[in-house]
Amino acid sequence: MAGPRRTGAAISDLTAQRLSVYLRCLEDLQSAGVRTVSSQKLAEKFGLNSAQIRKDLAYFGEFGVRGVGYVVADLKDDVIKILGLTRNRKVVIVGAGNLGMALADYAGFNAGGFQIVALFDNDTGKVGGRSRGGVPVLDIGSLTEVARRERVSIAILAVPAPAAQKVFDLVRRAGIRAVLNFAPAQLKARPGITLKAVDLKIQLENLVFHLSRAEEARR
Amino acid sequence: MAGPRRTGAAISDLTAQRLSVYLRCLEDLQSAGVRTVSSQKLAEKFGLNSAQIRKDLAYFGEFGVRGVGYVVADLKDDVIKILGLTRNRKVVIVGAGNLGMALADYAGFNAGGFQIVALFDNDTGKVGGRSRGGVPVLDIGSLTEVARRERVSIAILAVPAPAAQKVFDLVRRAGIRAVLNFAPAQLKARPGITLKAVDLKIQLENLVFHLSRAEEARR
Repeated sequence: MAGPRRTGAAISDLTAQRLSVYLRCLEDLQSAGVRTVSSQKLAEKFGLNSAQIRKDLAYFGEFGVRGVGYVVADLKDDVIKILGLTRNRKVVIVGAGNLGMALADYAGFNAGGFQIVALFDNDTGKVGGRSRGGVPVLDIGSLTEVARRERVSIAILAVPAPAAQKVFDLVRRAGIRAVLNFAPAQLKARPGITLKAVDLKIQLENLVFHLSRAEEARR
Repeated sequence: MAGPRRTGAAISDLTAQRLSVYLRCLEDLQSAGVRTVSSQKLAEKFGLNSAQIRKDLAYFGEFGVRGVGYVVADLKDDVIKILGLTRNRKVVIVGAGNLGMALADYAGFNAGGFQIVALFDNDTGKVGGRSRGGVPVLDIGSLTEVARRERVSIAILAVPAPAAQKVFDLVRRAGIRAVLNFAPAQLKARPGITLKAVDLKIQLENLVFHLSRAEEARR
């Protein structure tokens, strides 16, 4: 079986997101002791599109074995490589409010290649505390020092919208190269830093889109 | 200018998600006092693909005016109709931990067609409290009564993974027709209820995918 034929450079953002979904399914299968899986079984079990799975995976080379399907462990490792998840990444969360605290303990944010080093806040009442899972809350003034010492590559912003741009620039000056922004604020892109926004309202609107269709169908 | 030519029934999930992104941009433009916008300007200002915008919008009829572009207010109203966002929707959140509390006060979840009625929890220490924004925490035992009285159509699950399936079934028995699941658990779909999962780890992995590409380019 050949390895991935192309690097991530040729993949679109949407393909990468689907590969993440496949990765989650493969992890589930592996922990359930399943050793091989066909694209059809994968599609059935997780409510995905089998033609799309074949198309997405064929793109990277000959993963499947005729009549057997994919070897779960191998396919998982290949997807991890394609997505650039082979290196361990250190993560900080800026903002130790409800959202920051929830994200610090969110399953998966502190596992499988990610390590949450600390939360940061400017509220002295929060500094010195810990999330339920044990992530310490540090003073925002120590961000640069911690980021450099620990070689942090990702910051998650969980601050109020009015503070988001200032915090983003602070994070950039601290040498952090990637930001996942949960603040409902449109940040100005800056050179040398990868920025991705999570807009939870889109998820809620998308749910309503499907609900409306279901309601029409029931009429 | 003609209205939307087709109903939402013909749109894919991904198109609906892009329409939500356009809607957010149009709201921004409208609040900034901008009255018309071309697909190119829309693309430039928000880092989107102008050909994709034209393709997505052309699909629904003749929205644009030659030489002027789109009338922001009209386009916004049409997208709202297409996405099924014309009705007001009442929302409950189950789980009043950090994540539930954060979502209760999340900008946009309690505005623009959505109204968060209450949080629910089984922890008597939390029942009777409120989120910072004022959303009350009620006893999970009163979910069915509140859902029916208030005609709640959406439940957001922010409970620990082991409780998620039980809570999902409880929500369904309460007559709620749509669920947005934040619990990191694979829920079994049930007839008559629309289910959408939010997997935040996919967002983090997707950020790393882009970061890895940027790192390779810098080498």
